[in-house]
Amino acid sequence: MASTEHVSSDTSLAGSINEYKGRIERFLTNELKDASIDEPVLKSAMEYSLLLGGKRLRPFLVYATGELFNAKSQDLDAPAAALEAIHSYSLIHDDLPAMDDDELRRGSPTCHIKFDEATAILAGDTLQSFAFNVLAKHNYIDVSATQVVQMFTLLTQAATDMCAGQSIDLQQTNTLQQSSSLQQTNNTPVSNLNKDALLTSLQEMHRLKTGALIKASVLMGAICGSATELETKILSQYADAIGLAFQVWDDVLDITSDTETLGKPQGSDVAANKTTYPAILGLDGAKQKATNLITQAVHALQQLPYNTLQLEQLAYYIIERDH
Amino acid sequence: MASTEHVSSDTSLAGSINEYKGRIERFLTNELKDASIDEPVLKSAMEYSLLLGGKRLRPFLVYATGELFNAKSQDLDAPAAALEAIHSYSLIHDDLPAMDDDELRRGSPTCHIKFDEATAILAGDTLQSFAFNVLAKHNYIDVSATQVVQMFTLLTQAATDMCAGQSIDLQQTNTLQQSSSLQQTNNTPVSNLNKDALLTSLQEMHRLKTGALIKASVLMGAICGSATELETKILSQYADAIGLAFQVWDDVLDITSDTETLGKPQGSDVAANKTTYPAILGLDGAKQKATNLITQAVHALQQLPYNTLQLEQLAYYIIERDH
Repeated sequence: MASTEHVSSDTSLAGSINEYKGRIERFLTNELKDASIDEPVLKSAMEYSLLLGGKRLRPFLVYATGELFNAKSQDLDAPAAALEAIHSYSLIHDDLPAMDDDELRRGSPTCHIKFDEATAILAGDTLQSFAFNVLAKHNYIDVSATQVVQMFTLLTQAATDMCAGQSIDLQQTNTLQQSSSLQQTNNTPVSNLNKDALLTSLQEMHRLKTGALIKASVLMGAICGSATELETKILSQYADAIGLAFQVWDDVLDITSDTETLGKPQGSDVAANKTTYPAILGLDGAKQKATNLITQAVHALQQLPYNTLQLEQLAYYIIERDH
Repeated sequence: MASTEHVSSDTSLAGSINEYKGRIERFLTNELKDASIDEPVLKSAMEYSLLLGGKRLRPFLVYATGELFNAKSQDLDAPAAALEAIHSYSLIHDDLPAMDDDELRRGSPTCHIKFDEATAILAGDTLQSFAFNVLAKHNYIDVSATQVVQMFTLLTQAATDMCAGQSIDLQQTNTLQQSSSLQQTNNTPVSNLNKDALLTSLQEMHRLKTGALIKASVLMGAICGSATELETKILSQYADAIGLAFQVWDDVLDITSDTETLGKPQGSDVAANKTTYPAILGLDGAKQKATNLITQAVHALQQLPYNTLQLEQLAYYIIERDH
């Protein structure tokens, strides 16, 4: 990747989403092609999962945040790729029979169905190493080794949080659901006290499981742009709000969308006895919560003296998307 | 870890092994205690596997190599810990039912037996993130951010190679064994041509699966010590030779030792239809190969104008150990 010009001059969200998506997919394709992975089946499984598609939300956040500060696109490629590879590894492992046992992802067979379980475990493991390898060996222009180490500190903690979140999800689902079912059986409404406790648990799980990596995406863009402490704090507020809104909206879509649009079975949360925002707040309450979070996110951005249009549009997109 | 003095002034190998082992286990214990891993079962599973014991060969190599160049012990703690955490994660995942399906490791139940499969997958995943987190956030004295990034490039590639090696091992075992069994059935000796081909395959698999991480241990010590290019080349020769000898000797022990001493079932290679060095070269041939490799390793060291006694002793220990 020799190009150093800014990625997008298009002001429409769809345009920049597609441009960033195209850029990161070309970069990932090249990095994976050049990577020294001396076993072809393993490499195929990594490629299958990493290049299967997806919204590329995390790379978008790296590019859009970095560009606020005029960071060079070439410098943003490696953190964007690292985040997407970590995300991709987590999906492979979450889908395994011992975890969520999913056979469909983005409308295609999951990695352990397409290959086998051992290959899927190893493909996930190797994608994690690959993510950090890309971040380490990249040819940066304006990003110092000290900034690279800062990104490592941030991303390794986010990857740790993500696993803790998945572990809580696996363990808490039944406990939370038992409490929720009990109340439904007794035909008494969820009290405000219980609702608050359920919401707090659910929110903490999502903060770790998906929020941490979304926040790391914004903050790695900020590191590449040498953002100030105050700017980083404001961007953290934005990232926390959209990260949570993203998950609330995912729960909404699990009810309101259909399997073909989602690329995975609709209603799978209900089928898996998962506690969700609509289960606690009702469908309208969950939609309202997502809307409030996006309003908070946009308000945070308005404190920054930059053109934050792309990040604002992305925030609204989170609660407008149908998959 | 505030201590910066050199770890060992004892010239006996047992003394320095124990001193390094004690040091890295204290460091790992503290790092894991301080780590932000917000789910107690996951943290317990990581601790169980990481602190279960073991020879701590990789940390030894980091410390002993770094000390050749008067690197500070505090600077060597983080790479030593990162290597051990990567090694520990690989053992957890290799033991999984979908992989080698082992129930015993170092005389104790493997992670998925002690906990469950989902927790074992996540504990391995998190140990990989933890390894890189320790390497990134460490408070180095004389190691620059540029050197930290160099260590990241090296360790992430070694971790990738390790997975490729495991993938080859899972796939090739049957193929190699079929070829080997066929010849045994026909009662014809393995021809030199076939023997060479089998040896080349086996050696490449082990170079990736275990050799890469052993080599990274030596070279990360060399990076911390700001070794020259020539010194790094010599140390690479040493590392390649002991890495392979280590595996050849493991194959020998699988035949000559017993389950209690090994801490895992004796004869498991034969039971799993694994192709081994004794299977190709005979038991004496395999022992001779290991001895030759150690001689090469020690000859390489003798080109260095330093006191390489610890690394020499470690090389001999590899083919003297009984587990």
